[in-house]
Amino acid sequence: MKDLDDIPAIMAEIGARSKAAAAELAYAAPSAKAQALEAAADAVWAARATIVEANARDLEFGRDKGLSDAMMDRLLLTEERIKGICDGLRAVAAQADPVGAVIAEWDQPSGLHIKRVRTPLGVVGVIYESRPNVTADAGALCLKAGNAVILRGGSESFHSSQAIHACLVEGLRASGLPEDAIQLVPTRDRTAVSEMLTMTDTIDVIVPRGGKGLVGLVQREARVPVFAHLEGIVHIYIDKQADPVKALNIVLNAKTRRTGICGAAECLLIHQDVLDTVGQGVIRALLQAGVRVHADETLMAIEGTEAATSEDWGREYLDMDIAAKVVPDIDAAIAHIRQYGSNHTDCIITEDDAAADHFFERLDSAILMRNASTQFADGGEFGMGAEIGIATGKMHARGPVGAEQLTSFKYLVTGDGAIRG
Amino acid sequence: MKDLDDIPAIMAEIGARSKAAAAELAYAAPSAKAQALEAAADAVWAARATIVEANARDLEFGRDKGLSDAMMDRLLLTEERIKGICDGLRAVAAQADPVGAVIAEWDQPSGLHIKRVRTPLGVVGVIYESRPNVTADAGALCLKAGNAVILRGGSESFHSSQAIHACLVEGLRASGLPEDAIQLVPTRDRTAVSEMLTMTDTIDVIVPRGGKGLVGLVQREARVPVFAHLEGIVHIYIDKQADPVKALNIVLNAKTRRTGICGAAECLLIHQDVLDTVGQGVIRALLQAGVRVHADETLMAIEGTEAATSEDWGREYLDMDIAAKVVPDIDAAIAHIRQYGSNHTDCIITEDDAAADHFFERLDSAILMRNASTQFADGGEFGMGAEIGIATGKMHARGPVGAEQLTSFKYLVTGDGAIRG
Repeated sequence: MKDLDDIPAIMAEIGARSKAAAAELAYAAPSAKAQALEAAADAVWAARATIVEANARDLEFGRDKGLSDAMMDRLLLTEERIKGICDGLRAVAAQADPVGAVIAEWDQPSGLHIKRVRTPLGVVGVIYESRPNVTADAGALCLKAGNAVILRGGSESFHSSQAIHACLVEGLRASGLPEDAIQLVPTRDRTAVSEMLTMTDTIDVIVPRGGKGLVGLVQREARVPVFAHLEGIVHIYIDKQADPVKALNIVLNAKTRRTGICGAAECLLIHQDVLDTVGQGVIRALLQAGVRVHADETLMAIEGTEAATSEDWGREYLDMDIAAKVVPDIDAAIAHIRQYGSNHTDCIITEDDAAADHFFERLDSAILMRNASTQFADGGEFGMGAEIGIATGKMHARGPVGAEQLTSFKYLVTGDGAIRG
Repeated sequence: MKDLDDIPAIMAEIGARSKAAAAELAYAAPSAKAQALEAAADAVWAARATIVEANARDLEFGRDKGLSDAMMDRLLLTEERIKGICDGLRAVAAQADPVGAVIAEWDQPSGLHIKRVRTPLGVVGVIYESRPNVTADAGALCLKAGNAVILRGGSESFHSSQAIHACLVEGLRASGLPEDAIQLVPTRDRTAVSEMLTMTDTIDVIVPRGGKGLVGLVQREARVPVFAHLEGIVHIYIDKQADPVKALNIVLNAKTRRTGICGAAECLLIHQDVLDTVGQGVIRALLQAGVRVHADETLMAIEGTEAATSEDWGREYLDMDIAAKVVPDIDAAIAHIRQYGSNHTDCIITEDDAAADHFFERLDSAILMRNASTQFADGGEFGMGAEIGIATGKMHARGPVGAEQLTSFKYLVTGDGAIRG
């Protein structure tokens, strides 16, 4: 490796190696990829003491840096969490291999037989923040899809990610796959991120996983295509025809089950006709569960709520907070979501099919739900196995991004001497 | 419309109008879209005299500018070609509407029912050069997919495109769809192109159709996602196990049927073992057909060939020219295509299944062919109806881009009060 101060040179070398590895990975045997992931899981488990030790250094760095409790919790690796990482690797190993799968197949009158088959994307760059387990998840999903991956973890999880990465490389080595298939940027220097965003010759797509700072940087600087992962500004609209019990259970679950995930509800919209019959009960239950309710003028009448400011609409709390507002009708709810939502996940609670259809048709979130907790916005819950995140853009991947979404396709056309007239 | 000199203001207004139109188009009735396209076809045919007149002004401009014969031919509109435009509009009208189509549908153990349905992309920007018919083709395909479109035609076809565009707007008006659904940039000023490439707030994807100059500009300046349409540097490899008759027919057809299309063959690679039995005959037939053969050292021995220079490898002639080279084996052919190809369309001629599989597996062109003329690289020949072009990138769309490739998708999730445990 070059001088660690010469970031462009380091990144150029990593890029060139990734591209070479990707060319080989594109036709690697499915069994070799599965074997590499199994071996990586074994290696992670065998190295759990080393990983916990590396994690302790990161935790110390985090404490010195004054990270919040939530951030420190994301950073923490316990033996149980390490077992979760191993389980994740084995689950991806066990999934069907997407590469080469025939998506469609048909004959043309000209005598041509046409197949559309899945191919790897090439080289994926993953830029993430504190959670060290992303190292394993992203590495595994990219490998499964036949892609080489360049991982750039957060500076907080630097040592933990390195320890996990070493195990992934051990898996690659054990199965005879190129070690450069999964590379980790070996520096905390942030200019490595800017570098990645412009490596159009070697990186095919960037997957950014992080907060507003990272998203802004990506929007300003990226020249490489991006699978955008914006915030989850998740709305739940309680319709005029909402079932009161479903409304109560869903809103409570969507807000409080886990507040730190992107599918957690952040804003509640209540149809004015059911404010007394459904809405008030839901707000009181939220307050009772310890949620701070940032209420509009009408809902402020309920004891325990606090006045919402303009900052509360379109805000991702990721905490025991929710914004709440009364709307005159479904179209006002839709207009609010269009203005303040992030096209991640939005939900309607209603027994009225026409209202649900209207909501599904007029909104364009990656995930639209009816009568279900938004905490189901998750690749595992969609049956996709692991996920690298929830894409909120409209290009290529959208919603939960699993191995299949990390592929492209090509056409294989077979004739028997066919010429065009 | 604003002052025509204030390009950023003009483009911002067009963008805002497109975005508003796209929000409405997203749930426009399929029948309204089909009706708009039928009415547009009627309008184009009714206005054919006006269109020919407008075209005459463009041809005069082109002559003054000294355009090549090939360019002048691309620019020319005759009554027959105008009939072709009408047929194209009606063909797209008759296609199945992609929006709302269910791509996949399944149940989860949690009780959730999940549907993945097609949605429009939003606002598409199409930047093209001399062919005025692209105005109709691109406008029709974008509308069919529920997208608003901003068309930026070449300065050569300025008046022709305007005349055709007026007919498209007439179709929109006749069916009650927003007229801003199909807008044409009303200025020849090139800064409008640079402007479009950075309109990330209003344009969802750019489709560039043009030569190296445009592609370079897009690569340098685009901040909006792009469906890359690079050149068609199409290779044909005659394998050791090639059938001599198929090889002869396919190479001749692929090179000479129409030289100006992106699926025309530009480089021939011949396995050394069949140089005498197959290769020489093919080269002689090409020469006899009037093709200039730019030959490597070995093939230069054939009378009538000329010496290839380093410029001939990876060159898109779009003319009666072909580069030709002898290779020691299939892997040398693959290496040559990887180095000089453009990931558009590449072909192997062989009776050997293992060789074909090897070629299909190791190359990653959007279209790979076996024993078929590369002139079949076309949306119509793939059964997709019209196409906006052949995408050579790996993100989102790839190969022929029809209405279906101009869509995204979203997940519709239905529960009956499901909450996550």
